[in-house]
Order: sequence, then structure tokens, then C-alpha cells
Amino acid sequence: MQYPEPIARLIDSYMKLPGIGEKSATRLAFYTLGMSDEDVDNFAKSLRAVKKDLHYCSICGNITEDDPCPICKDKTRDQTRLLVVERSRDIMAMERMKEYHGLYHVLHGTISPSEGTGPQDINLESLLRRLEKHKEVQEIIVATNASLDGETTAQYLAHLIKPAGIKVTRLAHGLSAGADIDYTDEVTLFRAVQGRTEM
Amino acid sequence: MQYPEPIARLIDSYMKLPGIGEKSATRLAFYTLGMSDEDVDNFAKSLRAVKKDLHYCSICGNITEDDPCPICKDKTRDQTRLLVVERSRDIMAMERMKEYHGLYHVLHGTISPSEGTGPQDINLESLLRRLEKHKEVQEIIVATNASLDGETTAQYLAHLIKPAGIKVTRLAHGLSAGADIDYTDEVTLFRAVQGRTEM
Repeated sequence: MQYPEPIARLIDSYMKLPGIGEKSATRLAFYTLGMSDEDVDNFAKSLRAVKKDLHYCSICGNITEDDPCPICKDKTRDQTRLLVVERSRDIMAMERMKEYHGLYHVLHGTISPSEGTGPQDINLESLLRRLEKHKEVQEIIVATNASLDGETTAQYLAHLIKPAGIKVTRLAHGLSAGADIDYTDEVTLFRAVQGRTEM
Repeated sequence: MQYPEPIARLIDSYMKLPGIGEKSATRLAFYTLGMSDEDVDNFAKSLRAVKKDLHYCSICGNITEDDPCPICKDKTRDQTRLLVVERSRDIMAMERMKEYHGLYHVLHGTISPSEGTGPQDINLESLLRRLEKHKEVQEIIVATNASLDGETTAQYLAHLIKPAGIKVTRLAHGLSAGADIDYTDEVTLFRAVQGRTEM
């Protein structure tokens, strides 16, 4: 005996999500069965809406309902700085910080020798075109993740853009807010010592 | 700056699922954005289908596309035994075992003094009606969970049904398959000793 067909299909769908195995998917499917019609209907609608109503901004690559996105359209923002991130989500994190008022560019990935993705696989060409067109850009802030692939990508970008006479900077590495020295890994400690600043 | 509206709504929907907080919901929503149109469409369809195409069997309470469910309709099954479970999912577990060939009854919950649910809140009356109508039932196998509420429910059922002259049995308690005595909790060990069988 199998699960009834509609449940089996929903389990399959849940299993396509990251980090959700068969057991969790089964639990979620049965939970869905007990949810209100309205909640399930909204869920189905919102799933379709993210695919239908969201697009990539043709300028920066951020996800957006309108093109260009609200940030690219906002002429009050500092047009001389571009902060380069791996993912749209990273923009949200930066905006939550409320201290950066320049523009963004989303790579949608990294250069990753281990995964076999190169410069042609990320949203890089549009960045170069953008720099050619907008001569007012004076600084590229590379905000890729502090991972191996993030570093590789940052190095590649610096190598590519610095010859054009544009300043390329990267985020500082060091202790997280509230970090306990005793619990901090060696790589982070090493970077914190290397990047020490005068008081 | 907020997430674009469609993403925010999908995050809300994911957060309605059990065990999924804001961080996970956000991760899932962005992942959904990158899924194929077909997968997302199937997901939305399957969500609606479980609400639209599935019902409770009017005899046993199991979820089913057809009423009565395939098990209740199957006259080759042993009509003298009813195995009582808390949830439809428990039926699937029993069927996977392939060793039980009788019928089922789903309570859709337990009697739980701590949660304030009593006999009137579970699918009990239909069980009593069923026993009155089908005098061929000779044994009720209570397969509620080995939790406090499951035990309470089992005791209540036994108390209610035994006076009608029907045999009421419960699942054995003891060691799980492959269990290591050293790692087994005291309650389980106590029950395993109490329920020891002659070799």
C-alpha cells in the first residue's frame, strides 16, 4: 500500500526543497492536509507568484518586481560606489545594516574551480559594461563571502578592474560582534591580528 | 528596504509549516526562485490537490481519494480485527510492515488531559457505531503511541470496549530492533523486563 496519489505527489514536491528528506517531506505533507484551505491556497499562489512576478534587474541583477529595481532607480543613492555581492539576499542583509547608500551588483554565484564554474558563469560581463558606461563609479566594494570561492572571486575581480583605474576594496575580516577569543577559529584570529587597527 | 512583495508572501507561507522559522523560510523562498517553472507549478498543484482530492474515509477515518478507502473496501482482509491508530500515517507504517491484514480505525488525535482534549474530540463515536454494526469484530488492537497521551487513550478505549465482550489488546512495549541495552532508557528497559517472554 502506497500513500494516496495526491499526498505522494506533495511529498515529492517537498523533497525537492533543500535540506528536506523523505521523513520531513512526509511530515510536511500531512501537516499541509490539516492546514486551512485559505493558507494552502495562499501558499500555492505565492509559489506561482515568485516565478511569475519576479525578475532580475537588467542593471544590477537584483531580484525585483519592476525593472530597473528600486535601488538602481533611486538617484539619491551614491552613484560612485558599487558593492558586489554573490546573491540578491546579500543585498537585503546590507540594506538591513542601513549604513551603505551606494549601488549594488549581484554576481549570482562565484568563480569556483572546485565546482567548475568560471568567470563566464557569473553575472560579470554586465558589471564591466556598467563600469564602461558609468564613468562616475569610483569604488568597487567586493562583498563576496569569506569562503574559498568568495576569495577567489574577489581576487579575480580586483585583478580585472584595478587596471581601469577604479578603486577596488573588500570587506574587513576579523572578529564577529560579541565574539569570544577563546572560541574563535585560528583563521579568523589570524585575520583579526593581521588587520589590527591603531587605537 | 524589504524583500519584494512576492518573496515576502512566500516566506510567510513557508513559515506556517511546522519547524520552519524565518531564516529557513527565507532560504526556501530564495531557493524556490531558482527552481524550474515546472517544479514550482507541480508544487503549487500538489498543494491544492491534497486539499481538494483527499477526504476522510467515512468508515475508518483514514485519508483517501475514494470513499470508502481501499482498505475498508477490500473484503479479502480479515474483518474480525480492528487496529486503532492516532493518525493516518500510522496506517502507512503498519502496512509497510506487511504482517497485518485486518482493518483500521483512525482516532485523529488522543485523549490528552494536558492539552484539554477529551473523548469527544477524537474519532471515537464512529468506532463505537462501527462495533455495534459489525458484530464480526472480535479484537481491537490499540496501536496508539507509547506516550502519556497514547497510554491514556489506550486505557480509556479498553475500559469502554471490553464490557461489550470484545477482546482489546495493545502493542508490546520493549526493546527496539537492534537496540543496545546500555543506551536504552529506564522506562523502556522496565517494560522490556515486565513483558519478558519464555524462550
